[in-house]
Amino acid sequence: MMRDVAVIGIGCTTFGEKWETSFRNLFVEAGALALEDAGVTGEEIDSIYVGNMSAGRFVEQEHVGALIADYAGLATRHIPATRVEAACASGGLAFRQAVIAVASGIEDIVVAGGVEKMTDVDTGVSVDALAGAADREWESFAGATFPGLYAMIATARLHDRSLTRGQLAQVAVKNHYNGARNPIAQFRQEISIETVLNSSLVADPLRLFDCSPITDGAAAVVVAPLERAREFTDSPVRVLASTQASDTIALHDRRDICILDASVEAGRRAFAQARLEPKDIDLVEVHDCFTIAEICAIEDLGFCARGEAGRLTEDGATALGGDIPVNTSGGLKACGHPVGATGIKQICEVTAQLRGEAGGRQVDAEIGMTHNVGGTGATVVVHILGV
Amino acid sequence: MMRDVAVIGIGCTTFGEKWETSFRNLFVEAGALALEDAGVTGEEIDSIYVGNMSAGRFVEQEHVGALIADYAGLATRHIPATRVEAACASGGLAFRQAVIAVASGIEDIVVAGGVEKMTDVDTGVSVDALAGAADREWESFAGATFPGLYAMIATARLHDRSLTRGQLAQVAVKNHYNGARNPIAQFRQEISIETVLNSSLVADPLRLFDCSPITDGAAAVVVAPLERAREFTDSPVRVLASTQASDTIALHDRRDICILDASVEAGRRAFAQARLEPKDIDLVEVHDCFTIAEICAIEDLGFCARGEAGRLTEDGATALGGDIPVNTSGGLKACGHPVGATGIKQICEVTAQLRGEAGGRQVDAEIGMTHNVGGTGATVVVHILGV
Repeated sequence: MMRDVAVIGIGCTTFGEKWETSFRNLFVEAGALALEDAGVTGEEIDSIYVGNMSAGRFVEQEHVGALIADYAGLATRHIPATRVEAACASGGLAFRQAVIAVASGIEDIVVAGGVEKMTDVDTGVSVDALAGAADREWESFAGATFPGLYAMIATARLHDRSLTRGQLAQVAVKNHYNGARNPIAQFRQEISIETVLNSSLVADPLRLFDCSPITDGAAAVVVAPLERAREFTDSPVRVLASTQASDTIALHDRRDICILDASVEAGRRAFAQARLEPKDIDLVEVHDCFTIAEICAIEDLGFCARGEAGRLTEDGATALGGDIPVNTSGGLKACGHPVGATGIKQICEVTAQLRGEAGGRQVDAEIGMTHNVGGTGATVVVHILGV
Repeated sequence: MMRDVAVIGIGCTTFGEKWETSFRNLFVEAGALALEDAGVTGEEIDSIYVGNMSAGRFVEQEHVGALIADYAGLATRHIPATRVEAACASGGLAFRQAVIAVASGIEDIVVAGGVEKMTDVDTGVSVDALAGAADREWESFAGATFPGLYAMIATARLHDRSLTRGQLAQVAVKNHYNGARNPIAQFRQEISIETVLNSSLVADPLRLFDCSPITDGAAAVVVAPLERAREFTDSPVRVLASTQASDTIALHDRRDICILDASVEAGRRAFAQARLEPKDIDLVEVHDCFTIAEICAIEDLGFCARGEAGRLTEDGATALGGDIPVNTSGGLKACGHPVGATGIKQICEVTAQLRGEAGGRQVDAEIGMTHNVGGTGATVVVHILGV
């Protein structure tokens, strides 16, 4: 009953502190790149989905879908323009809604994008806005910030000896190595384990280089029915699975703070939908908002047994050329984390890899996965793409 | 290819200044009422869509979909939970996404709800949050508030003599008459034309009683495939059309500030989808954020010729028992306008009317329409329901 869906175009702005541009223009830049890549004109777009976490707090602007459709020059055609939000998983969610719209046959050519402009307010406001992704009444008001929450997970893992501090640091080292090879990345320098271990303590045991940064950026993709994809591109990338799962908003309500059940569920459902197993995946973009989050994700998605992700990382299995390259883009750590854009950037990265267009960070891949997390795992969105 | 969809349950909290409850509990209350009405248990829900405009500003909380799924007791089943936002049209959009999910066959039993808790911050913050529905850079920063923007439309209409001040006031008089017969309404007292004309000037020519209030409230509905609806209810209400249109975010970019082209387009598409005409509609809930907005909506949707809505109102055609009853619920004016909830409340009202359960405001109806506007018309969502 559902139609097969393909990604036919991708576009990302560079990520970083982009003082020179505005929230709306960031999205328009990414959208224009995606349309150009797809060979699609504005006239052909049926609808647009925008992932954005907190423009209300960051730039005092809501009604983001219509704003962006307007500034993309689409207002005269009055197309549906919808913003979706699930904190840091907003981008993945926008892609999923676009896939549903096309798969169902309601629409043909749909743009899914994500954007966040985080540096127009001071850091205190940013941090407080981000705390809106947690349980405001029972976590944020009690003083828990995201570094603090993820630090509790890291502490538990270091305490039960299923992870070493060096293994955790290696996540950042690997992601900076990859980011140095990604033209859009916010941080394009390689670092050493010492860089991580000697950096400022943010929330024990997490240090500055364990944390993803505050970032401006946007990303967009164009999706179409697979049967029409070759009208636009010689290298369509198929959407093999699209899943979404929720969990308790507060970390303290979970059965085990070291397991993100929404990741486990979204991953399990995605593998079932695509009729694939973890061993079939050639690369994965996971949500490494903190180094510990990448460790959890690798295990939650089934790429190794519980407690093995640290060793996998240390052994180089998750590096470029390893058995399962993780975060070839540089991840949130090195690419930067413009919250609403991150989930779409993951789709862009996997698509570029599957097309063989990833330059100095290219891996050998026919099937890739994306894993986008909201908060500490109250929302997880997973996609599997293939050529 | 698409399945027919039915509304099988509805629930609304009372609307008003609800100091005694919280954002999350408001939604849970409405959701529980809708599930009880549908005879559906939490175990049967496949996903949830939440319409909310600005919880980030009003209660410092984002990630609203997961929060609400959690507090509704659904976290253990890890169902997809998605927030959508299009300013004051967020509720209509949540309903539309739920309809798409069910129509496409992706899911069966879906909850669509909307919620806003606006009174936990002072009025200045509320007004500024609401200004985020307009173009922040080119309207709000220049000092334009929503009363100011709609006042410009009203001024243009009074100036071209297609409307009188008394006709405008009659919109409020009618909606208060209806609201006095609606148990959930924030304002349940009848008023006279003199009440409106003697009330404080807000933005000339709009007076206090031309404006919808600041309100806390939530509403929820349960949708299901029509083929399964009778498992749950003897009185399913069919979704005959679901459409959405966008326009320029700024009012000054329109070809004519008195015509909301997104209303015209969404209405036209809805009539085409349902194969109906305006004369087939027995009642309509329109987005009367200001009295002038109801006047525009009646004309934009085609219920009368341009310039005739004032006279239609004066003649009683839009009153209970008139040719085309408008806002039997009391509308945003008397019911109150908890922004994200309003679009869902409209669905609840039309459903109640079609089921014959509208008590003292019951009209004779088999087909009803809802019209939900974001900002000054940058987003419009229209639905047609029928029995």
